[in-house]
Amino acid sequence: MKLARWQWMTAGESHGPGLVGIIDGVPSLVPVTSTLINEDLARRQKGYGRGGRMAIEKDQVEIFGGVRHGKTLGSPVALLVKNRDFANWSESMAPDAGTPDRIVTRPRPGHADLVGGIKYQHRDLRNVLERASARETTMRVALGAVARSFLNELGIGVRGHVISIGDIHVPHQDYTLEEIQETENSPVRVAHKASETAMLSAIDRAKEAGDTLGGTFEIKAFGLPVGLGSYVQWHRRIEGALAQALLSIPAMKAVEVGSGFAQADVPGSAVHDAIWWDKDQGFTRLSNRAGGIEGGITTGMPLVVRVAMKPLSTLLSPLGSFDIDSKEPFLAQVERSDVTAVPAAVVVGEAMVMHVLADAILDKFGGDSLPEIRERIERWDAYGRQY
Amino acid sequence: MKLARWQWMTAGESHGPGLVGIIDGVPSLVPVTSTLINEDLARRQKGYGRGGRMAIEKDQVEIFGGVRHGKTLGSPVALLVKNRDFANWSESMAPDAGTPDRIVTRPRPGHADLVGGIKYQHRDLRNVLERASARETTMRVALGAVARSFLNELGIGVRGHVISIGDIHVPHQDYTLEEIQETENSPVRVAHKASETAMLSAIDRAKEAGDTLGGTFEIKAFGLPVGLGSYVQWHRRIEGALAQALLSIPAMKAVEVGSGFAQADVPGSAVHDAIWWDKDQGFTRLSNRAGGIEGGITTGMPLVVRVAMKPLSTLLSPLGSFDIDSKEPFLAQVERSDVTAVPAAVVVGEAMVMHVLADAILDKFGGDSLPEIRERIERWDAYGRQY
Amino acid sequence: MKLARWQWMTAGESHGPGLVGIIDGVPSLVPVTSTLINEDLARRQKGYGRGGRMAIEKDQVEIFGGVRHGKTLGSPVALLVKNRDFANWSESMAPDAGTPDRIVTRPRPGHADLVGGIKYQHRDLRNVLERASARETTMRVALGAVARSFLNELGIGVRGHVISIGDIHVPHQDYTLEEIQETENSPVRVAHKASETAMLSAIDRAKEAGDTLGGTFEIKAFGLPVGLGSYVQWHRRIEGALAQALLSIPAMKAVEVGSGFAQADVPGSAVHDAIWWDKDQGFTRLSNRAGGIEGGITTGMPLVVRVAMKPLSTLLSPLGSFDIDSKEPFLAQVERSDVTAVPAAVVVGEAMVMHVLADAILDKFGGDSLPEIRERIERWDAYGRQY
Amino acid sequence: MKLARWQWMTAGESHGPGLVGIIDGVPSLVPVTSTLINEDLARRQKGYGRGGRMAIEKDQVEIFGGVRHGKTLGSPVALLVKNRDFANWSESMAPDAGTPDRIVTRPRPGHADLVGGIKYQHRDLRNVLERASARETTMRVALGAVARSFLNELGIGVRGHVISIGDIHVPHQDYTLEEIQETENSPVRVAHKASETAMLSAIDRAKEAGDTLGGTFEIKAFGLPVGLGSYVQWHRRIEGALAQALLSIPAMKAVEVGSGFAQADVPGSAVHDAIWWDKDQGFTRLSNRAGGIEGGITTGMPLVVRVAMKPLSTLLSPLGSFDIDSKEPFLAQVERSDVTAVPAAVVVGEAMVMHVLADAILDKFGGDSLPEIRERIERWDAYGRQY
Repeated sequence: MKLARWQWMTAGESHGPGLVGIIDGVPSLVPVTSTLINEDLARRQKGYGRGGRMAIEKDQVEIFGGVRHGKTLGSPVALLVKNRDFANWSESMAPDAGTPDRIVTRPRPGHADLVGGIKYQHRDLRNVLERASARETTMRVALGAVARSFLNELGIGVRGHVISIGDIHVPHQDYTLEEIQETENSPVRVAHKASETAMLSAIDRAKEAGDTLGGTFEIKAFGLPVGLGSYVQWHRRIEGALAQALLSIPAMKAVEVGSGFAQADVPGSAVHDAIWWDKDQGFTRLSNRAGGIEGGITTGMPLVVRVAMKPLSTLLSPLGSFDIDSKEPFLAQVERSDVTAVPAAVVVGEAMVMHVLADAILDKFGGDSLPEIRERIERWDAYGRQY
Repeated sequence: MKLARWQWMTAGESHGPGLVGIIDGVPSLVPVTSTLINEDLARRQKGYGRGGRMAIEKDQVEIFGGVRHGKTLGSPVALLVKNRDFANWSESMAPDAGTPDRIVTRPRPGHADLVGGIKYQHRDLRNVLERASARETTMRVALGAVARSFLNELGIGVRGHVISIGDIHVPHQDYTLEEIQETENSPVRVAHKASETAMLSAIDRAKEAGDTLGGTFEIKAFGLPVGLGSYVQWHRRIEGALAQALLSIPAMKAVEVGSGFAQADVPGSAVHDAIWWDKDQGFTRLSNRAGGIEGGITTGMPLVVRVAMKPLSTLLSPLGSFDIDSKEPFLAQVERSDVTAVPAAVVVGEAMVMHVLADAILDKFGGDSLPEIRERIERWDAYGRQY
Repeated sequence: MKLARWQWMTAGESHGPGLVGIIDGVPSLVPVTSTLINEDLARRQKGYGRGGRMAIEKDQVEIFGGVRHGKTLGSPVALLVKNRDFANWSESMAPDAGTPDRIVTRPRPGHADLVGGIKYQHRDLRNVLERASARETTMRVALGAVARSFLNELGIGVRGHVISIGDIHVPHQDYTLEEIQETENSPVRVAHKASETAMLSAIDRAKEAGDTLGGTFEIKAFGLPVGLGSYVQWHRRIEGALAQALLSIPAMKAVEVGSGFAQADVPGSAVHDAIWWDKDQGFTRLSNRAGGIEGGITTGMPLVVRVAMKPLSTLLSPLGSFDIDSKEPFLAQVERSDVTAVPAAVVVGEAMVMHVLADAILDKFGGDSLPEIRERIERWDAYGRQY
Repeated sequence: MKLARWQWMTAGESHGPGLVGIIDGVPSLVPVTSTLINEDLARRQKGYGRGGRMAIEKDQVEIFGGVRHGKTLGSPVALLVKNRDFANWSESMAPDAGTPDRIVTRPRPGHADLVGGIKYQHRDLRNVLERASARETTMRVALGAVARSFLNELGIGVRGHVISIGDIHVPHQDYTLEEIQETENSPVRVAHKASETAMLSAIDRAKEAGDTLGGTFEIKAFGLPVGLGSYVQWHRRIEGALAQALLSIPAMKAVEVGSGFAQADVPGSAVHDAIWWDKDQGFTRLSNRAGGIEGGITTGMPLVVRVAMKPLSTLLSPLGSFDIDSKEPFLAQVERSDVTAVPAAVVVGEAMVMHVLADAILDKFGGDSLPEIRERIERWDAYGRQY
């Protein structure tokens, strides 16, 4: 589970020419189009409580490599998302000669500014914040749409929804794929109407108070084959790969699998899932507290992970900090006005889960083209049912 | 943060000849002795609520490579821990010719038995459970003791303690390294006396009821340099690497950094850490809700991670399952009698955190020998203080 | 030596929108400009014996990420080279909807066409040849220019020259960096006038005969620190990493280090390099048959590798093949008219060597910014001299 | 081709307790026994012209993990080879407390001694030479025997033979698997009687003269499926992976694929392999100058690689060097008396090729058990034949 087969990288700064991403390892013959990718980009830009930039800048992908006539070639897939307001930054963010209009010397608490400045020996903190910005997740989502199409073709559906914003929690329930998909219509990506209403007013209140809100979301994957991941070596357990991928999203502070933290509080007799067998389905489970993973391996039950996002660190009510040049104290500046980004973070979370699952599929089934892999999974499922 | 420089693997089955581990990338001139490693092995075997095997089998390491006269050579470090009761299993677990005395066909719920059997096409589930067993973590701890010595020489101390068993939670507090070290004397590795007493009776009650208990633990690292990890690429964020390492421990279901899940519930004004500066120390933080990480990079404040462990899945009150051969239902069998392993899991957690930190140190400072690395860190710290 | 710190990928098809590349791990504060990169791109397009495309299409890089005002940021460097004639292919090579004007069903011998078609289940072999084309090496060279600047700043110079074309071999000699740099003025990148003249007429003769020529080239690195690579684990030997990098260039069939194959023929007494010591320089060698590597580690002497390139597989005098649809035999078609690409291949070879060395530097010295790394190398050199 | 699925490491010093190796990623149900591994270990110890140690010490493997009753479990395979004369070195090479009897301060030319001493800051060069010794390749061969069994079960045979010792070259010919296997009976592992005789006397003469001899060997793999490796990304070309693996063997200085260096000298019309097709076999080639690889991908023709080994660097007629403590010049000491190790190196070369091929198989076919992989290859071969 080292993302050894589905390898991807992104590059690009928040106000530079744009974002770039490459995935190496995408099988051939997977349907991929700009339309399909733009759909996920649009989903990332929605959500009640977002401020200015999201409105101005409608992200559009350009496919630059690895796709021809709407199908992948087997060669690396390369995507570009241009920054629409680069025109306004072309001097300040010029790759070649240019002059910074205003040097940033005031590190914001809760951001990478200070620690990044020290690490990379920058005295203009714009050199840090341009890459450390959550803008970078745009490309994760664009590339994730490629993973989504691959998984869809294999009958695997991955969707997430918000389960809390601030201290308002959606009642716990085993949501189906369809129920989660319907949250597309909710301004806060929530499956429970009463909670939705409460969240909307909480966001309004926070906005008035000049504050921000975090929250939690849940991502589920349906239709996974049995047998992804392994217990044989520490880094091959699939929950580890998922946890790394999810905590690599800026502002995420916690992750749990299945019932997670709650399992630590209850006795063993209330935690595990009984095994069932019948002739048609073969082996299955009577419940899914484990969240679809046993012994580091997918069980065929829905995969369930949950992630906690801290409130955005750009504060309207500022915290104390010190200028790195003058060493004078100041109150941290405001650069934008999003109240909460949890509904958008769900889409980034989906992308990260899908990258991990695409890699796990290739690890288990190998293969270089969609038909080859699809046939292997069908045979594997048949074998599994008669085990 | 791909564990590219501090690379390690383990092998070995629970009742086979023993466990083996290799770390490639250990710098030269790090003090390593059997005594030092055995100390951590002993710590892993302690804890109120453990059953039979821990008592019988006192693990002892043999250093097989990479160390000479108590110092590492720069070549890979290889360790062996023999299984003392292999004598009783030498026929059943013989690598070469031999006969299984009793084929295991009854998968236990909550274990890798069933899913591992399907994945590797085994019909004798002993072939799965022997490796999926938590016995494997013994070698993670042995190798972790090498990381510990390396980190200690650089002034970095990593220690963990239990913060809940079942529903009994230690009151939240900012524990110092010394306070955590003192939990060595607690039978449940707990820093709070009243909680300890409550936990001991909870364990007793669970034992009587034939049940098991999970819990949570916290691991802190003190003395880390600023600048480990990075925001520049998704897989280089240090919290991601930590999360993977910790969730790769069998039975772990959740992980959080700093105040973690709790951060999702409170407004932004209550979450971030103000930046402070003074002439002697340079930049620092007035609080540490972030758990020592900002923007995927260590801040120099103590690193804080928390992990949830589910109750042991070997149940005294059994769950339903089906025989893989006869396809008949049965109630899952009992193979051992530990009530809780949370105090022991702390030691495994420390090992995993130390492996990640050793790798992160090598990533930031490079170097092939302890003196070379130590000097670089000293110069880096000096630079950081005057940034 | 797993290219774990200087990680790079390329994407893009020969007649698609263009080529893209990302390097993750470039330290901050390295000078990088379009001009600097275009210089190496121009060097790759030169050379007596090239046919049509090289003349038409002058490659120009666009820096898309990781660089600001001529200095790297520490974030991933992203480069784009647009395909100037994509306008003519925009229908045939459209990523989104579009129609292939002519399906390629005739695999050329000596190309990836057939084997790539089978692997990726393509029936239009254009889907293979577009990525398998040597066009892809353009981006390796562009990214390599970033490595070159990094190495230059550390006092390391990497240059190559042609030592044979067809059966005309340059007399063996220990060329200095300056002598190799002067080959920039030779139309076949050769340091020996008489050989140059002979090669030019050999190329003319081959052209008339409708044939192609291969050859060999040598790449040297000057100014390397002692101690890159290691003997401790198989994959850490630096000659292995170099060999992989060089044989990954299309059409390369052999690689040797130092006197290479010739060493196998002579007795041991004529092969090794005596060790010398004096107070100022410390330890050095009296000769360099080893090519700058002992025990998988750089010795501080110039690194010397040599590579053999087969004649271009696009033949004017065609070989037999079979159509993959009709299964009828045909004589392989001609798509272009280069007689030899050995002088250009040198530039690709330099790029690959520089990528390996940049990674090896980061492996040995760690570090996130140029000043940090430069200071560490200076201290290391001082230590080495007084060992 | 990053050896991401068949991951292996070795550890251990030449006179320490022994050698250890672990392979992670071996599928389940592959036949593995000590006998089978010992066979390859014995093959590595044979060969005319070996001196003392090979005779004394008959290597015997102990299987320590991953194998039960002669079949792999899917868990990591761990092997041990104890050093029989450790008894005589137990004080000098003690991992724990102990005293070196004699500090080595005299670096031998052509060894890692000096450069390793500098790199790892050792003043006793025994700390270097113990791991840099070719003894380490014993474990590569032991682990390679596991790869051999896996490949054999898939119908893939990998064998090598000597094609030159000193300046005596075996006439070039397309040797079959059977012809190569018969070289097992040759004291110099040579398929050509007259050459064998000449080599034996060359070795005798070198021995009398106090000199050593290098040579070259060829390794071929028969029965490979079409489609291993790829052209889509530089590091996925299979010749690159093979070249790294082979040049990672101590004393190897050059590697070529197919007709290799010779291809650079001849015109294109004499280099490539015409494509053929018939109904039963599908596509094939009329010759194999490419050595079984086109576009970085296996063609289904035999894989052919050739490697050059320099003469052993331990010289009877010594070269000049300097003591690292006294800085006094000396003539390099003699530690052993092998004249040539080329016949033994063949076996190490086979192991390295097999590790690469095992990984490439897993990359293409995925899978966790031998039956699963075997079935996929059969279906793939059928598909290939009707392409």
